[in-house]
Amino acid sequence: MKIEHLKGLIAAPFTPMHADGSLNLSIVPGYYEMLKANGIMGAFICGSTGEGVSMTQTEKKKVFEAWASVSKDDNHFKVMPLVGGTSLNDCIELAKYAEECGLYAVAFTAPFYFKPANVQVLAETCRKVANAVPNMPFYYYHIPVLTGVGFTMFDLLNEIDDKILNFAGVKYTHEDFMDFLSCLNFKNGKYDMLWGRDENILAALALGARGSVGSTFNYAAPLYNELIASFEQGDLEAARKKQQQSIDMIRLLGKYGGIATGKAYMKLMRLDCGEFRLPVRNMSPEQFQLFKKDAEQIKFSIFCSQMPAASVIK
Amino acid sequence: MKIEHLKGLIAAPFTPMHADGSLNLSIVPGYYEMLKANGIMGAFICGSTGEGVSMTQTEKKKVFEAWASVSKDDNHFKVMPLVGGTSLNDCIELAKYAEECGLYAVAFTAPFYFKPANVQVLAETCRKVANAVPNMPFYYYHIPVLTGVGFTMFDLLNEIDDKILNFAGVKYTHEDFMDFLSCLNFKNGKYDMLWGRDENILAALALGARGSVGSTFNYAAPLYNELIASFEQGDLEAARKKQQQSIDMIRLLGKYGGIATGKAYMKLMRLDCGEFRLPVRNMSPEQFQLFKKDAEQIKFSIFCSQMPAASVIK
Amino acid sequence: MKIEHLKGLIAAPFTPMHADGSLNLSIVPGYYEMLKANGIMGAFICGSTGEGVSMTQTEKKKVFEAWASVSKDDNHFKVMPLVGGTSLNDCIELAKYAEECGLYAVAFTAPFYFKPANVQVLAETCRKVANAVPNMPFYYYHIPVLTGVGFTMFDLLNEIDDKILNFAGVKYTHEDFMDFLSCLNFKNGKYDMLWGRDENILAALALGARGSVGSTFNYAAPLYNELIASFEQGDLEAARKKQQQSIDMIRLLGKYGGIATGKAYMKLMRLDCGEFRLPVRNMSPEQFQLFKKDAEQIKFSIFCSQMPAASVIK
Amino acid sequence: MKIEHLKGLIAAPFTPMHADGSLNLSIVPGYYEMLKANGIMGAFICGSTGEGVSMTQTEKKKVFEAWASVSKDDNHFKVMPLVGGTSLNDCIELAKYAEECGLYAVAFTAPFYFKPANVQVLAETCRKVANAVPNMPFYYYHIPVLTGVGFTMFDLLNEIDDKILNFAGVKYTHEDFMDFLSCLNFKNGKYDMLWGRDENILAALALGARGSVGSTFNYAAPLYNELIASFEQGDLEAARKKQQQSIDMIRLLGKYGGIATGKAYMKLMRLDCGEFRLPVRNMSPEQFQLFKKDAEQIKFSIFCSQMPAASVIK
Repeated sequence: MKIEHLKGLIAAPFTPMHADGSLNLSIVPGYYEMLKANGIMGAFICGSTGEGVSMTQTEKKKVFEAWASVSKDDNHFKVMPLVGGTSLNDCIELAKYAEECGLYAVAFTAPFYFKPANVQVLAETCRKVANAVPNMPFYYYHIPVLTGVGFTMFDLLNEIDDKILNFAGVKYTHEDFMDFLSCLNFKNGKYDMLWGRDENILAALALGARGSVGSTFNYAAPLYNELIASFEQGDLEAARKKQQQSIDMIRLLGKYGGIATGKAYMKLMRLDCGEFRLPVRNMSPEQFQLFKKDAEQIKFSIFCSQMPAASVIK
Repeated sequence: MKIEHLKGLIAAPFTPMHADGSLNLSIVPGYYEMLKANGIMGAFICGSTGEGVSMTQTEKKKVFEAWASVSKDDNHFKVMPLVGGTSLNDCIELAKYAEECGLYAVAFTAPFYFKPANVQVLAETCRKVANAVPNMPFYYYHIPVLTGVGFTMFDLLNEIDDKILNFAGVKYTHEDFMDFLSCLNFKNGKYDMLWGRDENILAALALGARGSVGSTFNYAAPLYNELIASFEQGDLEAARKKQQQSIDMIRLLGKYGGIATGKAYMKLMRLDCGEFRLPVRNMSPEQFQLFKKDAEQIKFSIFCSQMPAASVIK
Repeated sequence: MKIEHLKGLIAAPFTPMHADGSLNLSIVPGYYEMLKANGIMGAFICGSTGEGVSMTQTEKKKVFEAWASVSKDDNHFKVMPLVGGTSLNDCIELAKYAEECGLYAVAFTAPFYFKPANVQVLAETCRKVANAVPNMPFYYYHIPVLTGVGFTMFDLLNEIDDKILNFAGVKYTHEDFMDFLSCLNFKNGKYDMLWGRDENILAALALGARGSVGSTFNYAAPLYNELIASFEQGDLEAARKKQQQSIDMIRLLGKYGGIATGKAYMKLMRLDCGEFRLPVRNMSPEQFQLFKKDAEQIKFSIFCSQMPAASVIK
Repeated sequence: MKIEHLKGLIAAPFTPMHADGSLNLSIVPGYYEMLKANGIMGAFICGSTGEGVSMTQTEKKKVFEAWASVSKDDNHFKVMPLVGGTSLNDCIELAKYAEECGLYAVAFTAPFYFKPANVQVLAETCRKVANAVPNMPFYYYHIPVLTGVGFTMFDLLNEIDDKILNFAGVKYTHEDFMDFLSCLNFKNGKYDMLWGRDENILAALALGARGSVGSTFNYAAPLYNELIASFEQGDLEAARKKQQQSIDMIRLLGKYGGIATGKAYMKLMRLDCGEFRLPVRNMSPEQFQLFKKDAEQIKFSIFCSQMPAASVIK
């Protein structure tokens, strides 16, 4: 399999929910339009931001279908779902379903209850899932802060190279730049290394990253597109300013309790995706008012993503 | 709901697998007989030892059915499944199915990808699942080493008391005896605190524990029954010796790669449950030979569980 | 060297300070009297409770001298200082000074900035210090929560046995009862295993511990002496109640910010040792008032240590 | 105090030892010459690389003197010692001695046995030491991997700003680029942020770092000077290649047991600094031979620092 190297911003969409916590997939077409209108070139669905772990198999399949449906005639928009979880049979079923739906690729992360004892076991685990869809690009999703599995990706590449033929690359959500650069340089850049920490995308670009997957691209794509443009024009000073704005925005996630803050930002740009499911904590209405003020303070409205004029979402 | 306080040994059965990794539930009747013959009074199924996280919903339901079927006329044998996982909808579905099958109770552990931010969120998460089966005893399974969720159970009891009416107690797989004793003494012993670390059951007994859930009870029940008898007779010296034997046995789990060693012990007592699924690593045949020698060294055959003479398993 | 097995309670004294943070060693004679009057049989000085790491070499030597002086004619009162730190030359100097002062033994903990890479290196590090005082009992102080060095003591005993001839045992401040019992049973109880977690001394007694080192023995010796007496009389129910009282007392340490709470308890029994040095945080006067109320709530005055009538401290 | 912003490479010298582990300070003049000849503009002494924690106060003072002596007429070469440790009285004494010797600045790290409970306590701890030398620049050395103290430096700057008037900046040995950029931008770049992770200096440069402190600058200064030159000329491709070479070199530290590998690299460039003290583990002679081969493999001799022709070290 020829490995494609993706370039640009891939969003990790939130999974839209109704007030009662059930899926609200009617929003997906408008969500897709919005991403396109803001220069996003793909979607990483059912990952952390997409709350894959908090959904049933059936729900995940419905999300696959929804994104497959809106993007089916759009070869430039790449959709890849996270199929990972702790039951490999479930992962394999989802991987096959992703193929059936016509999605672009699949992603998988390390099982996070029982954890692989070494990188060989992790490679074997990946192989088992990758082999179920030999004609699809297979990405490993590296996010040790949530999985507790922290082997270097350089060691994983050494272990899978020439053994998992559809291994395409890594969504790298960790801050080990020594490892990341080593992977970028592995066999002259053979694998597609997608950066996954929005708050330091500038450092990743400096090292040679081309594609990125991020949750804040959902609601602040213009900021990152400008950051990348500045970087490509050699204007590091401007790029640093954009990165600092992104950091100020991301700092509010820490202040307001973590990942659910992302859906609060979405509300500010008028794409209401509901709330996160338990065990994630959502803001109280009082906190949301404070958050709104902080978002004004950092001038969120100036750099946030824009809903297209003719959006299907009213 | 009147909270029952269980007494004695509850095994956490291995889930039997065929060589190809599929379920081998034909073994369950014999497994049940064996546990009964060795003085075990219940089964905690689909937990860590039972590889719940590595199975699909459908598979877990089949395991529920198998154990429900063999124990349906046996009121003295308590079966409780772990319904936990990261998707609460899945947990709720399993809890209801456990009720439908006529199992005794359900157990739930903290979601372990997204983790509750504080003990209030954990309590709310428990409540959501417990409320689905208000007439069944609900146990919280405390195993921070695997879930990464380490709030004290004393704090959890304070949070759920009088709010989750079917909260029955805790399977306590952690070594915080300050917390454990505080829970035993909570409201004059209101809750059922089941000890879950076989290697220090003697310490738990000294503090007042009455019931225990363990994986090594599968294959070494006689050892633990003798340990408890010695303790109850006030012969601490003898109890310590038994505990040391249990430790020597458990040390081999560390030496041979962890949890999968349990299935190797089962092979030695001639109840072949197959292997663990990925990402758990199993012994190689060479390692198994070395393990057998070490098991002889610690005289495993003297204190191990015995297959009943008329076992259905040939 | 014949290894002596200590029995009973060894306090880990606070180092008395003046309001300006300088040593206030005039209190030591009265402190010693108080410990004796409350049934304490030794002192572990300059450890965690004694703030060894926060003192200069010169200050530590003065503390050695003060305790040596008050106990010099008292063969039943064993004083051992922690000589450990990160500079082995300093440790060796202190060990020799302890010998010169006539103290009973020395204790050493793992260096905690650079940490030994494996248990062999830890053993070698111990050996270097132990060899400086070959005629003194040498104890290893196992406190992974502060040093970050967590090798099992069973592995350390295997490594040092017959190699460090004055290795006498371990002050075990960790909650791994599997390891602790294995050490108690090592070569038929060859080494002196001193328990170091007051909040679960009952569990340790059940396993066979005889001596203990603790900070709360400073101010609640009667409680622990009664606990031990109940245990020895086979009255576990009474012992558990005492242990729960000890836990309620220790829980206030967590509530009021940690180790410095110990000096606040000392104030309540009218032995003012001043405050902890930075970076330890002390209570504000407002917090101290709240703390006093909580201490009344748990009836601290009923079981706390008593100042002798004729105390030199007025 | 006007805060100076250092630019370029500051080495963290190894402390030279004789074969018996005693100081070998006769090497320092030649060491200094070598650093100068390779474009190094300062020395961070007695830090991690310099084994400060493994030395006595007296030894540290001798190291201060040695470096003060060789650089006393060289205003362009900045020497700053780490005075940190766990005893603040010791730290203060060393800070004053550094001033007496005429060193440029002092550095301090968080106490690492008792750890500050929050960033306010850390700030108060810093203040106490900084106030002892109010006319010297005071740097905080941020190295959570060794101290276990991980507050963000952004929070520390907020806490100390306008309170510690001689606070000059941070030696940042951690990989949190969100925090690092926020500190660079704090009050328009008020503080001097020195980068301390050689393996990702390129990322730091991209964010705006100007000065760096590193251990591998001791033996590979030419590589880093070329990397910086490439970066400044806008040739990122070349800079990435240099960074990869640095990473390949640093990977051998992991392979051969850590920090002591640095002294092995020094031997290869013929500046023998002896071995690390316990508890750091040194290579065996056999391992050194393997290491030499690996060093050849990565072509260490091509980019390593060069001894000046007329070196005083023969």
